[in-house]
Amino acid sequence: MNPAYVHGYDTRESIRLQDQAATLVELLHSDTAYPAGSCVLEAGCGVGAQTVTLARNSPQALITSVDISAVSVAEARRTVAAAGFTNVQFQQADIFALPFAPASFDHLFVCFVLEHLARPVAALQVLKGFLKPGGTITVIEGDHGSACFHPDSAAARTAIQCQVELQRRAGGNAMIGRELYPLLQQAGFNPVHVSPRLVYADSSRPALVDGFTRKTFTAMIAGVRDAALQAGLMESQAFEQGIRDLHRTAEPDGVFCYTFFKAVGTKAR
Amino acid sequence: MNPAYVHGYDTRESIRLQDQAATLVELLHSDTAYPAGSCVLEAGCGVGAQTVTLARNSPQALITSVDISAVSVAEARRTVAAAGFTNVQFQQADIFALPFAPASFDHLFVCFVLEHLARPVAALQVLKGFLKPGGTITVIEGDHGSACFHPDSAAARTAIQCQVELQRRAGGNAMIGRELYPLLQQAGFNPVHVSPRLVYADSSRPALVDGFTRKTFTAMIAGVRDAALQAGLMESQAFEQGIRDLHRTAEPDGVFCYTFFKAVGTKAR
Repeated sequence: MNPAYVHGYDTRESIRLQDQAATLVELLHSDTAYPAGSCVLEAGCGVGAQTVTLARNSPQALITSVDISAVSVAEARRTVAAAGFTNVQFQQADIFALPFAPASFDHLFVCFVLEHLARPVAALQVLKGFLKPGGTITVIEGDHGSACFHPDSAAARTAIQCQVELQRRAGGNAMIGRELYPLLQQAGFNPVHVSPRLVYADSSRPALVDGFTRKTFTAMIAGVRDAALQAGLMESQAFEQGIRDLHRTAEPDGVFCYTFFKAVGTKAR
Repeated sequence: MNPAYVHGYDTRESIRLQDQAATLVELLHSDTAYPAGSCVLEAGCGVGAQTVTLARNSPQALITSVDISAVSVAEARRTVAAAGFTNVQFQQADIFALPFAPASFDHLFVCFVLEHLARPVAALQVLKGFLKPGGTITVIEGDHGSACFHPDSAAARTAIQCQVELQRRAGGNAMIGRELYPLLQQAGFNPVHVSPRLVYADSSRPALVDGFTRKTFTAMIAGVRDAALQAGLMESQAFEQGIRDLHRTAEPDGVFCYTFFKAVGTKAR
């Protein structure tokens, strides 16, 4: 493979993204900060995991966070209050029936939401209606098809596919990360800029191995065990082998990689 | 997926690696530069594709480039001379029978070589013998298992697997990139630091789409067509569908991702 003759853009600086292997929070969110006084809508805040980071990185912005689940909204409200932030207001609402005036937000933030929606482009189009001309939408999604690990394991890959298939049956798409560019384009944002964020964990980065390989990714796949077995997607023994093999990638000679995709689209003036 | 509680390292700056989507040459090589007067061994220079970049980025270093193929060495010599560099000397030699004194180089550079070797750890151990204590080895490899694209295509994935299987039958490993950390550790380098380099190409980056998606990756897979069919790995029609589907990812709504891995290991003093 000879990549020597590919030319295009300019990035002499900045090889250190993965080199320094920040916390995942920094990797995903450190370049999102909204100006003082700007009105930001977080659509699909869930239990507020990203809301805390949003509020911290944009302390002078006025953040409105909504979720379709009232239970989640209540938990998000408690989490953000416990963290001491006062620049967020919460509301239970469906993305397809938001109680806001058109063009009432300067910016939109949508993290780990599109993966659960059957009509992601329609959702993006609806959200665009609440955005002022010239405003931006920031979308972050993972992509389970990007998981890549050592030692490789067919059982582990099949266990991951169980999660992908269950999410598909629920109307979602666990491999949506790679599609953010066309999705935002189809929704009419222009320009759209996507930057992948690769999480790389080997034993020289023990916090990532423990925090991401074991406690985030492997725990998430292990969490679909019962649903996968009930759906007949995999035999119990094979699934458990897959989980053991994912844990094996967290051993001293193991490696685990996963890519998140972050897109920023602009609404034309 | 809630990655909010992973903690570890610090990379506030430097999200712009993929954002700026440099040329692949910059992505892979811009952070490799050797000091004036240092002696660098490039093991497995092939036809000199990387040698030109090495010579350009380290104009005051004395580079010795070897390859097992005399034909390749002759072409590399012509390429480097035509580019106007005089700081490289060439020699035909087998990595397992190098004509150098022990500990005679300050640094080693090995790019797209281990993927072709049946005993990569043994090769790294042999090379370490020619390195001065405190010197570094830089290793760069791709990983075909990291390829991830939209629209996804089973035929394209199977065509890629043909290349992986053919390389395996030839004694190599087209998915070696993810293994660099354990391989260098097993060879006795310490510390070892790996940084993945993800190439992301959507239609906002037309030079990468053309230069990487079409002319580097898809062309490489298309190049194993005859061997794959002769080996009975895939039917002709399915293989051609796979190649069409890879070209499809270069259309305006397509996306293609591939990850290279770069490792730097140090020989203990």
